[in-house]
Amino acid sequence: MIVLKLGGSLITLKHKKFSFRRKVMERLAAEIGDYKGKLIIIHGGGSFGHPLAYEYGLNNGYEDERQIDGVVLTRLAMERLNDKVVSALLDSGIKAVSLQTSALAFCRGGEIERLNLEPVKRFLDIGITPVLYGDVVLDSAKGFCILSGDRIAVHLSRTLMADRAIMAIDKDGIFDRDPNITKGTKLLAEVNQHNYQEVLRSLGSVHGDVTGGITGKLRELWLLAEDGIESIIVNGLVPGRLQKALLGQEVKGTRIRVAP
Amino acid sequence: MIVLKLGGSLITLKHKKFSFRRKVMERLAAEIGDYKGKLIIIHGGGSFGHPLAYEYGLNNGYEDERQIDGVVLTRLAMERLNDKVVSALLDSGIKAVSLQTSALAFCRGGEIERLNLEPVKRFLDIGITPVLYGDVVLDSAKGFCILSGDRIAVHLSRTLMADRAIMAIDKDGIFDRDPNITKGTKLLAEVNQHNYQEVLRSLGSVHGDVTGGITGKLRELWLLAEDGIESIIVNGLVPGRLQKALLGQEVKGTRIRVAP
Repeated sequence: MIVLKLGGSLITLKHKKFSFRRKVMERLAAEIGDYKGKLIIIHGGGSFGHPLAYEYGLNNGYEDERQIDGVVLTRLAMERLNDKVVSALLDSGIKAVSLQTSALAFCRGGEIERLNLEPVKRFLDIGITPVLYGDVVLDSAKGFCILSGDRIAVHLSRTLMADRAIMAIDKDGIFDRDPNITKGTKLLAEVNQHNYQEVLRSLGSVHGDVTGGITGKLRELWLLAEDGIESIIVNGLVPGRLQKALLGQEVKGTRIRVAP
Repeated sequence: MIVLKLGGSLITLKHKKFSFRRKVMERLAAEIGDYKGKLIIIHGGGSFGHPLAYEYGLNNGYEDERQIDGVVLTRLAMERLNDKVVSALLDSGIKAVSLQTSALAFCRGGEIERLNLEPVKRFLDIGITPVLYGDVVLDSAKGFCILSGDRIAVHLSRTLMADRAIMAIDKDGIFDRDPNITKGTKLLAEVNQHNYQEVLRSLGSVHGDVTGGITGKLRELWLLAEDGIESIIVNGLVPGRLQKALLGQEVKGTRIRVAP
């Protein structure tokens, strides 16, 4: 079984609220359709979830009543993005079904306290691909919090012992320095026990904020690698890469694993 | 806390696939908005869920692979109806959030085996109105089954000890005979321990098929009454009736309760 995360920046235009990259998603769905094994898909919030979550300070947890508007609006926006993703998958012949993260996952202080795996496993059992997504979820310490698609993907990979995890993003993978601000950066084909600490340091030293996203992702994926589950980050904007990753073929990207 | 069921025939046109009664739903949302207490809303599938469920024989459970298409299409259709309901509620100022029945409920042989109440209760706790709906759900004996909105409403009323349950439908309530085929039928203002058996008999004796829906509803609501939870069936097509029912005012309809 493969756990596939579709990044929010890949399937939406990050800086344009509620903008869905339909063409990109349709092509990704076609590539996914060529893989015939068991699959769980998780997608990010992109410009459907982030602007609202930010505007209402949802990740701070319950501070005042006004945020409740933010919770219900974020929930609705995420349902709508999810509808678009699931529809594109169905159109490509993938028997996909939405599974609402906020009905399954409960956090405490922003960390997953419990995620009900039963419907995920049982939909898989009858040949259906569950589609989850980053969302606002209930939090027993803070009232609510944002649970990212990355977190869900790593959690499901670990608890369901996925064969592999694939993170499709809008970049080629992890670079030795932040490619947005440093010229001559080099894509890392692999992060393993020999270079992990060094990579972390170099990412962190360049620009804490900008690389926060990728550094966080790397940390999580490294913990997953230590648990024996290999992952690969590929650029979903380049046609064919996701397909190759799914089929286990050689592909440009960054592999995160404990090297033999 | 009130449990409110909005009938599928009330919010959709029964015989026209995927037809949403937007105007009706907007008015109902406005009436619901006048009630300021805690509320759980459940809606039926109407012309979004029933035709697909029927076409693919979903209530028979898993018989062949082709039905999986029916499961995923029904799921998507119900999400879309639910989006319309939740949107109308939000537009009326009700802080509503969708809760996916198929992520919460598990059946065995068509009966609810388990329904995870935690997100329902916790959304209520932070002032949010959960909105569930009849849907195709996983079934440990049959693979999957149809769980009706009525069943969910009765189950939630009982397990969460609702103060009252309100069933808004497209008829005035329960009649002493089937109003579709018998003239001079009389609306029953109340079903209680004195007339329950007689009402059941007269409904059943007139026309088994057509009254199946209302007979089933009455049986469930009577069991609820015996558990001490009163319910009322009102006509949601008549402006003001749902509002009166929510506010606990005198209203035309059929009350189901154990009379003092």
